[in-house]
Amino acid sequence: MKTFMDADFLLQTDTARDLYHNHAAKLPIIDYHCHLNPADVAEDRRFRSITELWLGGDHYKWRAMRTNGIDERRITGEASDWEKFQAWAATVPYCFRNPLYHWTHLELKTAFGIDKLLNPETAREIYDACNDRLQNDPSFSARGLMRRYNVETVCTTDDPVDDLCHHKAYGNPPASTKLIPAWRPDKAMAVEDVKAFRSYAERLGMAADMEIRSFDDFIDALQRRHDFFHRQGCRLSDHGLSEFYAEPYTDAEIAHIFDKAYGGAELTEDEIRKFKSAMLYIFAVQDSASGWVQQYHYGALRNNNSRMMRQLGSDTGFDSIGDWHTAQSMSRFLDRLDSEGCLTKTILYNLNPADNEMVATMLGNFQDGSVAGKIQWGSGWWFLDQKDGMEKQMNALSLLGLLSRFVGMLTDSRSFLSYPRHEYFRRTLCNILGNDVEQGMIPFTGYEEQRVRQMVEDISYYNAKHYFEFG
Amino acid sequence: MKTFMDADFLLQTDTARDLYHNHAAKLPIIDYHCHLNPADVAEDRRFRSITELWLGGDHYKWRAMRTNGIDERRITGEASDWEKFQAWAATVPYCFRNPLYHWTHLELKTAFGIDKLLNPETAREIYDACNDRLQNDPSFSARGLMRRYNVETVCTTDDPVDDLCHHKAYGNPPASTKLIPAWRPDKAMAVEDVKAFRSYAERLGMAADMEIRSFDDFIDALQRRHDFFHRQGCRLSDHGLSEFYAEPYTDAEIAHIFDKAYGGAELTEDEIRKFKSAMLYIFAVQDSASGWVQQYHYGALRNNNSRMMRQLGSDTGFDSIGDWHTAQSMSRFLDRLDSEGCLTKTILYNLNPADNEMVATMLGNFQDGSVAGKIQWGSGWWFLDQKDGMEKQMNALSLLGLLSRFVGMLTDSRSFLSYPRHEYFRRTLCNILGNDVEQGMIPFTGYEEQRVRQMVEDISYYNAKHYFEFG
Amino acid sequence: MKTFMDADFLLQTDTARDLYHNHAAKLPIIDYHCHLNPADVAEDRRFRSITELWLGGDHYKWRAMRTNGIDERRITGEASDWEKFQAWAATVPYCFRNPLYHWTHLELKTAFGIDKLLNPETAREIYDACNDRLQNDPSFSARGLMRRYNVETVCTTDDPVDDLCHHKAYGNPPASTKLIPAWRPDKAMAVEDVKAFRSYAERLGMAADMEIRSFDDFIDALQRRHDFFHRQGCRLSDHGLSEFYAEPYTDAEIAHIFDKAYGGAELTEDEIRKFKSAMLYIFAVQDSASGWVQQYHYGALRNNNSRMMRQLGSDTGFDSIGDWHTAQSMSRFLDRLDSEGCLTKTILYNLNPADNEMVATMLGNFQDGSVAGKIQWGSGWWFLDQKDGMEKQMNALSLLGLLSRFVGMLTDSRSFLSYPRHEYFRRTLCNILGNDVEQGMIPFTGYEEQRVRQMVEDISYYNAKHYFEFG
Repeated sequence: MKTFMDADFLLQTDTARDLYHNHAAKLPIIDYHCHLNPADVAEDRRFRSITELWLGGDHYKWRAMRTNGIDERRITGEASDWEKFQAWAATVPYCFRNPLYHWTHLELKTAFGIDKLLNPETAREIYDACNDRLQNDPSFSARGLMRRYNVETVCTTDDPVDDLCHHKAYGNPPASTKLIPAWRPDKAMAVEDVKAFRSYAERLGMAADMEIRSFDDFIDALQRRHDFFHRQGCRLSDHGLSEFYAEPYTDAEIAHIFDKAYGGAELTEDEIRKFKSAMLYIFAVQDSASGWVQQYHYGALRNNNSRMMRQLGSDTGFDSIGDWHTAQSMSRFLDRLDSEGCLTKTILYNLNPADNEMVATMLGNFQDGSVAGKIQWGSGWWFLDQKDGMEKQMNALSLLGLLSRFVGMLTDSRSFLSYPRHEYFRRTLCNILGNDVEQGMIPFTGYEEQRVRQMVEDISYYNAKHYFEFG
Repeated sequence: MKTFMDADFLLQTDTARDLYHNHAAKLPIIDYHCHLNPADVAEDRRFRSITELWLGGDHYKWRAMRTNGIDERRITGEASDWEKFQAWAATVPYCFRNPLYHWTHLELKTAFGIDKLLNPETAREIYDACNDRLQNDPSFSARGLMRRYNVETVCTTDDPVDDLCHHKAYGNPPASTKLIPAWRPDKAMAVEDVKAFRSYAERLGMAADMEIRSFDDFIDALQRRHDFFHRQGCRLSDHGLSEFYAEPYTDAEIAHIFDKAYGGAELTEDEIRKFKSAMLYIFAVQDSASGWVQQYHYGALRNNNSRMMRQLGSDTGFDSIGDWHTAQSMSRFLDRLDSEGCLTKTILYNLNPADNEMVATMLGNFQDGSVAGKIQWGSGWWFLDQKDGMEKQMNALSLLGLLSRFVGMLTDSRSFLSYPRHEYFRRTLCNILGNDVEQGMIPFTGYEEQRVRQMVEDISYYNAKHYFEFG
Repeated sequence: MKTFMDADFLLQTDTARDLYHNHAAKLPIIDYHCHLNPADVAEDRRFRSITELWLGGDHYKWRAMRTNGIDERRITGEASDWEKFQAWAATVPYCFRNPLYHWTHLELKTAFGIDKLLNPETAREIYDACNDRLQNDPSFSARGLMRRYNVETVCTTDDPVDDLCHHKAYGNPPASTKLIPAWRPDKAMAVEDVKAFRSYAERLGMAADMEIRSFDDFIDALQRRHDFFHRQGCRLSDHGLSEFYAEPYTDAEIAHIFDKAYGGAELTEDEIRKFKSAMLYIFAVQDSASGWVQQYHYGALRNNNSRMMRQLGSDTGFDSIGDWHTAQSMSRFLDRLDSEGCLTKTILYNLNPADNEMVATMLGNFQDGSVAGKIQWGSGWWFLDQKDGMEKQMNALSLLGLLSRFVGMLTDSRSFLSYPRHEYFRRTLCNILGNDVEQGMIPFTGYEEQRVRQMVEDISYYNAKHYFEFG
């Protein structure tokens, strides 16, 4: 029987262990998409407790606790840090087979050196040990944690109206993790809520230092902010979509729809889809002109629980996997960009694994030989961000594309403790390759052995380094 | 080479064998959803032959026989019991890798003590041996078979107009399997066939001892029957749906649609969907008020073969897996109930495994901490009711929810010989956990070892016991 | 560590090795669906280089090369054979885990006896060795390659207007691979492009030696060609569809739509769907009357890249997997045929694996006991034509139907070197069965052992032989 989560966690073969320990483990992390708060980095935030760090914003854990019969008071409510930690510790032993079980113990081990398993009997000891470090050891600050995990680069997720003051304040000091903003203009296409859209457009005008009176002004303002982000080092965008939009429209229609929404009139479903189609296209043209990478995260069914939405707001654990059909519009969208010579490097992330093969084969339609792996399939996202989801994504990518060219893992996280997910990913990758090698599915001598070893390093680090060109 | 179907069938590791033999095997069965005929229990039915017991209503076997080139005469037609059994015995060796192969031999072994494999050469001997028991051994009656399999509780599936006379007649004698009715009001929303709907409404009125003149009367009558079912011990409902319905409507519209249908006029597609949306909601409110569990079985594409439908009627082996998209309406439906404080304990069963992850993540949107595992994902249903389907459901549930809180297996069967499917399920569960333990994925010492052992017992029995509260 | 691609490639157990080497390996190949050019067979084509043979038309390889950053000039452009081969050899080591890696080396080994691995260091040697054989060894002609792989029968894919001159010229000489045409009337329903449709109808009239003035004439002409194909030995049809079409229509409507399209007027979406529904039905009736097998390949999203479509035309590597919902129309289509007594033997191929279980269960709705395995689920198609896709198809077929009755593998290929895919399939099949046997999931003594052995031979060869009745 293999020991639980020892040095060879997830590594089933000698080859996997060799590949992981001698190649993957040593490489730095490029975390090219996450939701860290840049203020925490700029201020080198300290955390008052493991509760704040772990349970302050992690809706994965909140969902597990709700499922386990924990009342909301001890999840997001008024309970003390200790009460909340206790509630989490009581839930952890019910999480066998859920990725939270492994993440929890990987984080305790790699950050705090704690090998004990978290359960009601160990809760107090672990709570005190973690808090002691967080409160008394300066290396447990935000930046300290990033150093601990050998994080070379982190890309945050930022709105066009954001002034990026924290990125500026941080200023990427030498020998530190590089902090880079990423452009997420979702609100500039969220025209379904005309009131919020009007208010957003006004904020955008202020940020761009201009008055917005027309759709052209609106796009000008976005471009000014895009230029500003570029000057701040931004090299990639990100878009959160339910589905892709590629309806036919005319410029005059879009100008009219903008005026209507900006004037406060409700839009029809048809108008909303046309407007989104236009914006998706314009976003892509802007990114292409700047040579950025564009990312699309699609397929989430969000804010399903309106009672809790009113109580806690969005991103609190009430989202799930949608089931839209979007192959045709995704194809039409990418084809228009390709036809017009403005399809930049692109990463597609699907949330519903039923779309895996559809997306994996979509890539190939738009690979043009200009850059190896130009169109990428993003690593298992959100609910799929675990061993099974990663394996399914890497298996389908292997079969239907070139795994060798994959830019690999990102945390997509809000926590400074999530970096072990890169370790988790790399172990999973090495295990897949190790199994194949030992089963005689991949050759492992001479030229090919070197290629396998290099492939591990490429997917762990070098592919991302070359693809994003963060400099 | 492992022996075929020995005591360690499906159990690949020492840990799996330990968990199964020392924990899962000994627990009684709560079969909380099935299609047994309550009359058979009330009358303690005896079976004239293994053909009657096995082939009298099992459309899984019928489909296999049709696929194997057997003519309908020897499946559902005029052929003798022996001819039909012969036809089945000739088909069995063509069923390698189909669950029927394992079910057949598990049933022969656990009910009749027969270790021989069924094929044309053994057919006569096995036929005679089974029939001898069925005809001459009183313990092979309906109730005897339930005792043999240690069945504690069985819930049948009953229409609101049913008088439950067999449940009453049986009367749940002490030390016997408890027989509980379940509420299945599908016909009360089947407004697409206005003639059948009118006739159903009239029967409902008679059953409720009132005249139905309006939609309000219709709902009153349903409520009276709901109360009657509750008095008879019913604690759960079940709904068979193609997809979920959550269209906006007004009460006035529904009253009007009811009048129109009741008056015999055909409804539009839009009216049908509104009416179904209203009924689904009202059913749920009624269940919530009584504290029942509600079950939704959705996604079957039924009665595909109209020629055979005319010849044999429904539920004869001509149904298959549909591919509706229903995430948004499922969400809207559950959200409305949650918002109004009337979302009772709920079990969702999908038929298309492409929906697995969508459903598994839907649960979490409505877990409210009031009851552990309040919203459940039903065990692999119908076509998914086999090792692969069970593993996929348990794997996705593990990754996206809490497997620990799962209420586990049900037979959904029409046969008194289907109880070994609980054994099959428990072996599969123990095998999954055993593999994880031995691979170092789940810790197995001290507190955690006890949790794993308890988890097996919980999913096999105790979770269902606590969840349904049959008393 | 297992050696890469040795004699026991893909065979993990002793039982698998026994089944493969003693049963599957020795049987001839019936390749009942491919895209070989019949002229190549008639003329017994010789190939000037391995580049021509491998890279002349293989859009799988082209996609991989584009993904690997190879410019189009060295893929489909003006580069020399050696430059193109070099580009491919540079890509091969990036194809680990892609089926191309295994196919490439299986082909080198089984056709040319080359055991070396293809990479930039071995490229020249392998290039020269292959070319030497192709240019100097007469057994490396088209017919020679078919003999080498023990190919008994090959069905090409032909348009109704094709004069089948190459089939006639070849004339199926004794002791040679039998070459049979297959009927692919896609263009006769492609009414969305009215200009191309008109032109096609005219060519059809010429081929049928009649003038087409009405829809009835159009169908008459098709029937004449159908009869002609039948006389040339054709016994199966094939249809490439996005989704199934089963809209209600009247004959008058179809006649009108035909006149409209034939007259050059654009059709509405509704008219197009009605026309396609009518044609699909009529095609099926014609096949049924002749006792042919009909095949449906559905679910491809084609020609996604319009820039490359203009440059290279269709079938050049810019197709991918679609996500239509078609269960209901597929059911309605098959049901109509069954109801009218004209549902002939049918093979359904889905491209999106998310449809696997839907299709696998659709079969059972229309199995009528007249022929074992009358309705077939086609082997993993196109993107699914690899170990994982085959395993998923065979697993779902096993669980939801009868694997024993499966007609097995086809290449669907444009290359005379693709026959090792049958070997690849048979190894995969034997490995699945071997694992099950050794895990105690399938009995392997006496009657049952013989059944397993026969099952391997049936799926490899005999099922197809009996099903297609090529005579």
